[in-house]
Amino acid sequence: MSETTIGDTGEFDLIARITEVLPRTAQVVIGPGDDTALVATQSGSVLATIDVLVEGVHFRRDWSSATDVGRKAAAASLADIAAMGGVATALLVGFAAPWDLPVEWALECTAGLTAEATKVGACIVGGDVVASSVITVSVTALGDLQGRSPVLRSGAHAGDVLAVAGRLGWSAAGLAVLAGGSCSPAELIDAHRVPDPPYAAGPMAADAGATAMIDVSDGLIADARHLAEASGVDVVIDSADWIIPESMSTAASDIGADPRDWMLTGGEDHALLATFPADAVLPAEFRIIGSVMASDEPGVIVDGVRRYGPGGHVHFTLEL
Amino acid sequence: MSETTIGDTGEFDLIARITEVLPRTAQVVIGPGDDTALVATQSGSVLATIDVLVEGVHFRRDWSSATDVGRKAAAASLADIAAMGGVATALLVGFAAPWDLPVEWALECTAGLTAEATKVGACIVGGDVVASSVITVSVTALGDLQGRSPVLRSGAHAGDVLAVAGRLGWSAAGLAVLAGGSCSPAELIDAHRVPDPPYAAGPMAADAGATAMIDVSDGLIADARHLAEASGVDVVIDSADWIIPESMSTAASDIGADPRDWMLTGGEDHALLATFPADAVLPAEFRIIGSVMASDEPGVIVDGVRRYGPGGHVHFTLEL
Repeated sequence: MSETTIGDTGEFDLIARITEVLPRTAQVVIGPGDDTALVATQSGSVLATIDVLVEGVHFRRDWSSATDVGRKAAAASLADIAAMGGVATALLVGFAAPWDLPVEWALECTAGLTAEATKVGACIVGGDVVASSVITVSVTALGDLQGRSPVLRSGAHAGDVLAVAGRLGWSAAGLAVLAGGSCSPAELIDAHRVPDPPYAAGPMAADAGATAMIDVSDGLIADARHLAEASGVDVVIDSADWIIPESMSTAASDIGADPRDWMLTGGEDHALLATFPADAVLPAEFRIIGSVMASDEPGVIVDGVRRYGPGGHVHFTLEL
Repeated sequence: MSETTIGDTGEFDLIARITEVLPRTAQVVIGPGDDTALVATQSGSVLATIDVLVEGVHFRRDWSSATDVGRKAAAASLADIAAMGGVATALLVGFAAPWDLPVEWALECTAGLTAEATKVGACIVGGDVVASSVITVSVTALGDLQGRSPVLRSGAHAGDVLAVAGRLGWSAAGLAVLAGGSCSPAELIDAHRVPDPPYAAGPMAADAGATAMIDVSDGLIADARHLAEASGVDVVIDSADWIIPESMSTAASDIGADPRDWMLTGGEDHALLATFPADAVLPAEFRIIGSVMASDEPGVIVDGVRRYGPGGHVHFTLEL
């Protein structure tokens, strides 16, 4: 069976096939098919972010389905909107791929992007399809604060509590399992293929008075450092009483790894790391994992030890 | 002399070096450095578009400087905003590149993006830097209608005049000259390297009552067809009395090409093609090149001959 490729179909027919099945939400004034989209902005301003996923760097086609890649690409941008306290409204997708890629792959990737966007009430409003030797999915997410003030990285104060919503280290553990040639535990591999960011927790944190927030895309220590440096404080993490998920303990002992390393440095789970005043009532999704201290040398302290270096997630090693 | 590469610098240092020199306009509430940007939207809605440029497909590093590539990448998206009748406010840039790329190239590309954005009063508000085997620049432009109604592709009526602002065929002519191994006429090669879209003509066309408009990125016939099909009309182009720029006549006779073909099918100049009511007073940038007719078979007629097929621009041939 010879599959139809996007080179056979051509750019315009592929775009037509993609756009004819796209859902459209109430915020979309003009969707795909014109030179730009037009999206309503409830708050008089728009949140906007771009993330790029590259085959061989952020995903492998033998490890992830096209749907997985679409969902993962959307999640990276959608989580950034949540981390500001916003709700995503729209995605724009730049899709670069070899012309011998099956059309089906492009359509399934789009379905994945749409499925993830639908979780937060957003949809794809525009895009571009171009030729490239390597599949590259660029996703811009737009979002609305719905009247909230944005929660920046720079607002943490000494005395705040540090809390996290969502998974830590699951994607890194799944990647380690896949790299070791295993296909179990499945829930970790699934977590590597498709993250499950706690989107709703972002606006809830803003409503609960979060002083600072960041999407954990590079790893807990690395992103805590971004927050610490932007706020001019020390972020103190206490991992002593963390409950290690059983699947992660199992995988770690199989591989000879320390699951706590995955949780401290693994990226791509898109947890939300936030600081709150000590007397704030935290949304149920958040668990306290530390505190904020004044510092002359802003950084990250884990279990009493100051951590230097990036301490973050490294994607697959590129051979260039 | 060994140049510093972006692999030497690392993602975060490169981002820091890029962002420290970025200008910032009044519309930017939150710029680079947080999980998303926040951009003011004057009209209660935001125009948004994405375009992707790939090395070897849309540019070659031996033919274009990094600044040229940045300007060209920005122009593709900024022209889309103009074609809706809007004014661009902000760019988001996804930059994928081999880690052995000199840092200087990335900085100059960013300077090119900024230079082009500055022409319309916009600036870079966010981005992403990732590893890839091929340089890929994804640019999202945001824009504001400033109270205007958007000018769609679908609004052309029988009896309207067809008019164009900006250059036709210059980029294609420059590409043909470069591909032939020549470096003259310089103005055509420059036009291929850096387009000069008539940004201001977009909002002016909207104010003058344009019924439909499109950015000529794929070629006059190809984009006229998009407009014709969206509006359900025939777009009639009369090229008989076109004045062929002297540089284009010279280049064409050197190569043995027909300059009119470049003007009818060459893309990437980002001219604006618009339709206006017959009694409209056209902005000075626009010249009338045809008319709109009712049709049961919407399409494009050039000098009395109905044109089928894409009739558009083909980028460099990719070897995949």
